[in-house]
Amino acid sequence: MFSFSLEHTDGASRARLGRIRTAHGEIRTPVFMPVGTQGTVKSLTPEDLRELGAEVILANTYHLYLRPGHERIRRLGGLHRFMHWEYPILTDSGGYQVFSLGALRKISAEGVSFRSHLDGSSHFLTPESVVEIQEALGSDIAMCLDECTPYPVTPEEARHSLELTRDWARRCRRAHQSESQALFGIVQGSVFQDLRRESAEAIMEIGFDGYALGGLSVGEPSGERLEVIEATLPLLPADRPRYLMGLGTPEDLVEGVARGADLFDCVLPTRNARNGMLFTRRGRVIIKNAVYADDPQPLDPECACYTCRNYSRAYLRHLYLAKELLSYRLNTGHNLHYFMELMRDIRQAVADDRFREFKDNFYQKRKES
Amino acid sequence: MFSFSLEHTDGASRARLGRIRTAHGEIRTPVFMPVGTQGTVKSLTPEDLRELGAEVILANTYHLYLRPGHERIRRLGGLHRFMHWEYPILTDSGGYQVFSLGALRKISAEGVSFRSHLDGSSHFLTPESVVEIQEALGSDIAMCLDECTPYPVTPEEARHSLELTRDWARRCRRAHQSESQALFGIVQGSVFQDLRRESAEAIMEIGFDGYALGGLSVGEPSGERLEVIEATLPLLPADRPRYLMGLGTPEDLVEGVARGADLFDCVLPTRNARNGMLFTRRGRVIIKNAVYADDPQPLDPECACYTCRNYSRAYLRHLYLAKELLSYRLNTGHNLHYFMELMRDIRQAVADDRFREFKDNFYQKRKES
Repeated sequence: MFSFSLEHTDGASRARLGRIRTAHGEIRTPVFMPVGTQGTVKSLTPEDLRELGAEVILANTYHLYLRPGHERIRRLGGLHRFMHWEYPILTDSGGYQVFSLGALRKISAEGVSFRSHLDGSSHFLTPESVVEIQEALGSDIAMCLDECTPYPVTPEEARHSLELTRDWARRCRRAHQSESQALFGIVQGSVFQDLRRESAEAIMEIGFDGYALGGLSVGEPSGERLEVIEATLPLLPADRPRYLMGLGTPEDLVEGVARGADLFDCVLPTRNARNGMLFTRRGRVIIKNAVYADDPQPLDPECACYTCRNYSRAYLRHLYLAKELLSYRLNTGHNLHYFMELMRDIRQAVADDRFREFKDNFYQKRKES
Repeated sequence: MFSFSLEHTDGASRARLGRIRTAHGEIRTPVFMPVGTQGTVKSLTPEDLRELGAEVILANTYHLYLRPGHERIRRLGGLHRFMHWEYPILTDSGGYQVFSLGALRKISAEGVSFRSHLDGSSHFLTPESVVEIQEALGSDIAMCLDECTPYPVTPEEARHSLELTRDWARRCRRAHQSESQALFGIVQGSVFQDLRRESAEAIMEIGFDGYALGGLSVGEPSGERLEVIEATLPLLPADRPRYLMGLGTPEDLVEGVARGADLFDCVLPTRNARNGMLFTRRGRVIIKNAVYADDPQPLDPECACYTCRNYSRAYLRHLYLAKELLSYRLNTGHNLHYFMELMRDIRQAVADDRFREFKDNFYQKRKES
């Protein structure tokens, strides 16, 4: 059911063009996955997402497990039917959300116990249960339970963490039964290149349909992040998709692709949209600023999205200040359009063997503004 | 620019079929106007509204005057362009909102002073300024400033109030200059039929493009409301549109049409949607109820709206409980579809001279459930 084909590698960088096939259709990589935490990409319909060019979305296992419950979603025909999205879905393992609970959770070799952020109820997740939950949701790509190493940690802590992640990955692999669902392994090791290599080798030895780098964008300096990505991605098998978890900014996407990454997810475009921070070719726009109060121009005059075709900055500012529901929708549509178009442009540049040139232009435009 | 033609009157009731022509297109009556308080019908785009069949929307002068300001909207090309709605718009006078401020406002013969609900700033609106504001907004139909008589009042208070409304109507008529904008007068008089008659005669003597009944749905028993409507509407000229302000429920619409009303507006479908109360042919659905948790059926199996074609009650309940933005949008779309379809069915029934039969069926279906 699941396969990946590497279709082209850029002549002057590690940027790759690929195609993932799933039971719910194809994904052209490199790809950005909009985040639909609770079974909906906030404010948008599946039709909106397709029109924006989304080919795969990410849903959060932790949230759906707690509400409405994975067994309920299974009974209702799976997550695709539940949310009326018939295209590929990747589910995370829920680990990242659980670890973010801080004092509300406790980790052991067996698994992780935590209290719900919704009602304080007690829960225990294991590598096996996390696989079972994702099989119940019926996503196309499931992720192993991992411990997301925080930043900073000592090398000793990072090693202990990656060993736990490795043991859990083995248990996930054994527990996984679905033939229509892919399972991805996660490489940890914080910012230590030798530990990243050790983790990558252990995870590859278990063997997965794809490989992810976890524990990035958790507070480490961007220079260290890029070094880890640059050193670790080439260790992974070229014939499997590579997923940079939780990244990122437009810059993260460009730099990640340059180093050979295929999949990305981040709440940045959608969350920032709701906070009135909008991405444009010339940089970021804070729409509440008074300078836009009488501005009849579209947000980004070069943008062809629905928002930019039909509304002025003045109107977008008004909606934002009035906390109107349409504000979230128009802003989210614009930001996702920006991210989707960026990825389309990236894919075209890789196909044309001119990714290096594309990258230079990308930064040049930002400097000009 | 503005005209109304009465096209048909039902054989067995006072229900009428008509057509309003404005600078921004036609409105087939009887019609329900979705409320777009702050220059947006909450959660929906203008394209959504057209797809739902909306031909005219209502915007609130009070809100737009305070934020973003009518002069700003004028500079930006008027409300139609500002909000990207190129079809007819009716603006209220702002009077109702100001009177709802209670202790924050003070009425004199000259006008009404009040403090903004947004920032406490002081404002003074007169019949003349209310006309000027609506001309700046550029709506197709403007309303006179009136005093919305509360319920209950003594006949003496009601008379004093309707005299103020009459004086203000004269001043509005004199102040109004736009040739592309219609101006409607408002009949007050509370639940007293003789005072309603007196008010109607005074307002008609001034002469307006259309006539509204105000001061209804403010707490009076529905029996008294219907008697006032039944007694007052026939006093108004048959060749002018008649607007029942602030009504209503589906029952209000059916009963209003039966008595000869042409225009309606109400926040009910949109506000209730956001509160999870949904209209169906079989009555009202409270979507948060536990009975819907595992229900795979559409909200209303007979409904052809986007929400009912694509989502289950279980999903709608999930979105509502999770306070997801898509909940407001899917619920609003459904409720407005219900109201728009109800009005389409009403118009067809009037055209076919079977409105009485339609009305019987309407109530029969509700009894069955």
